[in-house]
Amino acid sequence: MKKNDKYCVIMAGGIGTRFWPMSRSQKPKQFLDVLGVGKTMLQQTYERFLKICPNQNIFIVTSEGFNDLVKTQLPNLPIENILLEPSRKNTAPCVAYACYKINCINPNAITVIAPSDHLILKEDTFTKAINACMVKAQSKDCLVTLGIKPSRPDTGYGYIQFVKSDEDEKDKRIHKVKTFTEKPELEMAKFFLESGDFLWNAGIFIWSTKSIIKAFEHSEPDMAQTFSDGLTKYNTSQEEEFIKEAYSKCKNISIDYAVMEKASNVYVRASAIGWSDLGTWGSLYTHIPLDENRNARIGDNIILNDVKNSIVRNENGKILAVQGIEDCIIVESDGIILVCKKQDEQKIRAIVGEIKTRFGEPYV
Amino acid sequence: MKKNDKYCVIMAGGIGTRFWPMSRSQKPKQFLDVLGVGKTMLQQTYERFLKICPNQNIFIVTSEGFNDLVKTQLPNLPIENILLEPSRKNTAPCVAYACYKINCINPNAITVIAPSDHLILKEDTFTKAINACMVKAQSKDCLVTLGIKPSRPDTGYGYIQFVKSDEDEKDKRIHKVKTFTEKPELEMAKFFLESGDFLWNAGIFIWSTKSIIKAFEHSEPDMAQTFSDGLTKYNTSQEEEFIKEAYSKCKNISIDYAVMEKASNVYVRASAIGWSDLGTWGSLYTHIPLDENRNARIGDNIILNDVKNSIVRNENGKILAVQGIEDCIIVESDGIILVCKKQDEQKIRAIVGEIKTRFGEPYV
Repeated sequence: MKKNDKYCVIMAGGIGTRFWPMSRSQKPKQFLDVLGVGKTMLQQTYERFLKICPNQNIFIVTSEGFNDLVKTQLPNLPIENILLEPSRKNTAPCVAYACYKINCINPNAITVIAPSDHLILKEDTFTKAINACMVKAQSKDCLVTLGIKPSRPDTGYGYIQFVKSDEDEKDKRIHKVKTFTEKPELEMAKFFLESGDFLWNAGIFIWSTKSIIKAFEHSEPDMAQTFSDGLTKYNTSQEEEFIKEAYSKCKNISIDYAVMEKASNVYVRASAIGWSDLGTWGSLYTHIPLDENRNARIGDNIILNDVKNSIVRNENGKILAVQGIEDCIIVESDGIILVCKKQDEQKIRAIVGEIKTRFGEPYV
Repeated sequence: MKKNDKYCVIMAGGIGTRFWPMSRSQKPKQFLDVLGVGKTMLQQTYERFLKICPNQNIFIVTSEGFNDLVKTQLPNLPIENILLEPSRKNTAPCVAYACYKINCINPNAITVIAPSDHLILKEDTFTKAINACMVKAQSKDCLVTLGIKPSRPDTGYGYIQFVKSDEDEKDKRIHKVKTFTEKPELEMAKFFLESGDFLWNAGIFIWSTKSIIKAFEHSEPDMAQTFSDGLTKYNTSQEEEFIKEAYSKCKNISIDYAVMEKASNVYVRASAIGWSDLGTWGSLYTHIPLDENRNARIGDNIILNDVKNSIVRNENGKILAVQGIEDCIIVESDGIILVCKKQDEQKIRAIVGEIKTRFGEPYV
């Protein structure tokens, strides 16, 4: 495969509340150095894809409000590679926009779609896996996704059921997909885990722009029509206005629901890439080096005495001192402070809702 | 008694660590609105004494570093009534300085000595008690102290043992003092409580300047000599230099130890003034209105969910949100944060020590 045919689309428009106050609507998780490693999640994701495709073939889809953050964090990225969505419409319009546009640039493009805020520990394995998926996507009209072998009956992820394919795959890790499944109940998740036929859906997709356009035409003909109307406008001064109009016509729908669940030519590659979506403080905790009392410390000027099994993050605080506490999440971010029992982390969303109501946007 | 003969000396030079980070060496407890009532402890103390003596007869003893805080917080106080100690030498030199100086202004002065950072809930009872002590102090060459009837075997206070006086006191609450006792062990404190002959030493003293000078001459002749050497210098431009010299000669000693424990003419008036030295977070907690979950909240923008029996103070923080915590002290002060289990509050001193070593003065 020619390197110039390889493309990557990093979706960086999300806003989350689960990591409040570390992550806030003005600066969500992808723009933060969540793990305290010296690079933001977006920077890590970008650098990961630089090993796969040329810099000018990496596109970031985000919203106007995050444009400056992307420019600042990825100073080497051509600014025309930052695609600004006029509104949040979930992942299907985002994918359509990027893929129709890239197809105009290079109709032979093989494109990876990836979230901007996931952790991937095994970079080399990831590179190999993506390249293998790209080969598959080039060889056949199909949609490929990365599947992660589940290690626990997690109810926070979608699952992909695969079948042992009759086809003679050169890559034994690639399987035909039977179904995409939404986040299951615990009993179902346990069954998925035991059956061995299910993989976690990591939200990382690989396809030729030709194939995804074909899939849109089949599953979402209206959306396909909307974005194909812009064929003469992509990569011109008219693109911005066209996209504004196009988005106003799009429904709010995920790529999984709009395309993947309806397509019959989907493949999954089971890949052990050390993946985590870092979707909860709990999952974050498992990826940060712990001190002798099993505390995860992120930031400076943290003093812990008789503190155990806690996550303590000090972003701007002058001093964060903790005494005699266990199993807590303690976060300072720009003068906003959260102290939360670890087992209550799912209640952070409600707190953020209350704060939004009482104090307004700047605090959430 | 002529109102102009009544004087008050408020000792406001202390620095504490127990309320860190609310109280810091640059702005200790007396300069803070500890209870969230809209006035600092010093302001409350000053206003309390305005009911007893004229404004120009109130003196504040503090250190150079706190001069501006006193001026700002007590804008109506004549600035010449702020006495600046050149160094911290405990309370005996402080009392000697103020009383020798006041004696030069008015040899008939009856003076109250009081801490600047204690809580007194029953203001009217306090006024009556002080006036009664002043009458006693004027009627006889003696030293009078306010005693608080103990309500628990507290090991954090000094105790005063009294004897039912043979003298025919007009005020039945005034008793002759037998001994001053340092902070006792718990067993001893229990015995003190049960015996009924002991009162808490609130550190509030009442005497004529004549009597305290006489007592200094008897118990601490060197210190008496030192301060009597300045008789021509008090209230002149030479006072500052004289005091600098005088303090360099003084030992570091409390008025209790230097004078009260050695004097034979000490009286105590048992007074139910609703007193607390607010010396611990625990004692502070008992004096702040609690919400339905027994939480004491001080400051704005505090959000508590499933939080019980806790003290939460937010001074400058934008938001302080707490979820699922019990029995904690959570304090934000100027970007410094403490989260401490209530039962561990005596460990705050060690934390402050560690911070002083690691980060330096500005943080303690």
